[in-house]
Amino acid sequence: MTEQNEQNTRDRILAAAKEAFLDKGFSGATVRDICRRAEANVAAVNYYFGDKNGVYLAVLDEIFSESFSNHPMQQGTANNSLEQQLENYVRVFLERIFHENDDQDRDDRECRLIAQAITTPSPVLDMLVERYISPMSERLRSIISRLLGLSEDHSDVWLCAKSVAGQCMHYLYGQAVMHSLDPKEIEDQNINTIVNHIVRFSLAGVQQRREEIRS
Amino acid sequence: MTEQNEQNTRDRILAAAKEAFLDKGFSGATVRDICRRAEANVAAVNYYFGDKNGVYLAVLDEIFSESFSNHPMQQGTANNSLEQQLENYVRVFLERIFHENDDQDRDDRECRLIAQAITTPSPVLDMLVERYISPMSERLRSIISRLLGLSEDHSDVWLCAKSVAGQCMHYLYGQAVMHSLDPKEIEDQNINTIVNHIVRFSLAGVQQRREEIRS
Repeated sequence: MTEQNEQNTRDRILAAAKEAFLDKGFSGATVRDICRRAEANVAAVNYYFGDKNGVYLAVLDEIFSESFSNHPMQQGTANNSLEQQLENYVRVFLERIFHENDDQDRDDRECRLIAQAITTPSPVLDMLVERYISPMSERLRSIISRLLGLSEDHSDVWLCAKSVAGQCMHYLYGQAVMHSLDPKEIEDQNINTIVNHIVRFSLAGVQQRREEIRS
Repeated sequence: MTEQNEQNTRDRILAAAKEAFLDKGFSGATVRDICRRAEANVAAVNYYFGDKNGVYLAVLDEIFSESFSNHPMQQGTANNSLEQQLENYVRVFLERIFHENDDQDRDDRECRLIAQAITTPSPVLDMLVERYISPMSERLRSIISRLLGLSEDHSDVWLCAKSVAGQCMHYLYGQAVMHSLDPKEIEDQNINTIVNHIVRFSLAGVQQRREEIRS
């Protein structure tokens, strides 16, 4: 095969796998399904990705890397206050969650794939944590540790970081419930309002903790 | 069939379905799988549950109702301050999430089933919202609306309620990521510390919002 053909086969398998996992979930989709959709054979899947886990990681890696390159985290500059850095952090986090393709159904299914991968302990999750989630966690703990005047590994820094991340992630996991609870409320949802709310709510929570530490 | 036999068949299908969904997820498990595990026929599944959706709802209903009856929400009494009511709310929420069976693997798989059902819009989700999630949401918004002096449907009440619920739910969804980020940090996790943190963090956030409203 020429190099071009090889790239085509790999891309075709990846696109087919994404559809298979979107349709049937990780456990429901089989390598056989993926081969059928890609018009490829099992040997090709094994050659490019090793096994079903390998294809799954490649699919999730593509979703994450696209989202992270479309919405890059601004690194703190000397001019930005810690409050501004936290706002930038929360804004980019929510932009990644609310990233809008033209295809809403596809977005929803990608969100579900990510939710499935994140809630399940697996070697795939460990890779996603290492490449994407751990740098985000470190950035957030760096901002909070400076707001609190504690080291990045202090348990209070972890607790506050989880409070901020949990508020953001709720808009990834909780969308379907929010919609079922009150469809109207969701329609009125505006990313600026949500960012502003989470930042002010969280800064007050962190400030409260700082006062307790100092007293 | 006697009434006892009928109950046995229904229970056997339900137990088998729970295992099938735990193993393969909703999309991966088939009615055929469930029948094989239960030693029952498709007609029996249809008779008791209608279809795969019906069995799925019955399985989730069982997990939720067991968790809710083991950890009931204390209703506010005249003696309890709003702060105490919020603490009770957060504590029960986390007890339901951290509910510990003897079988840790089973707990993890039940968490994943719930995560899957919650992130996916479906008639099953609508039923779970109506029976379990909506009463919880109303209770939380009732506490926050009185803390803020706003109606329960005010958008600021919704935003603060999402901030509290998101912090709690993070310990359901984010457990695997937290473990991958720092296993030691998770081992030190104590439900009292987490409840205390979320309540104080959230009361400061709500207080901040109240001051902004009044100024």
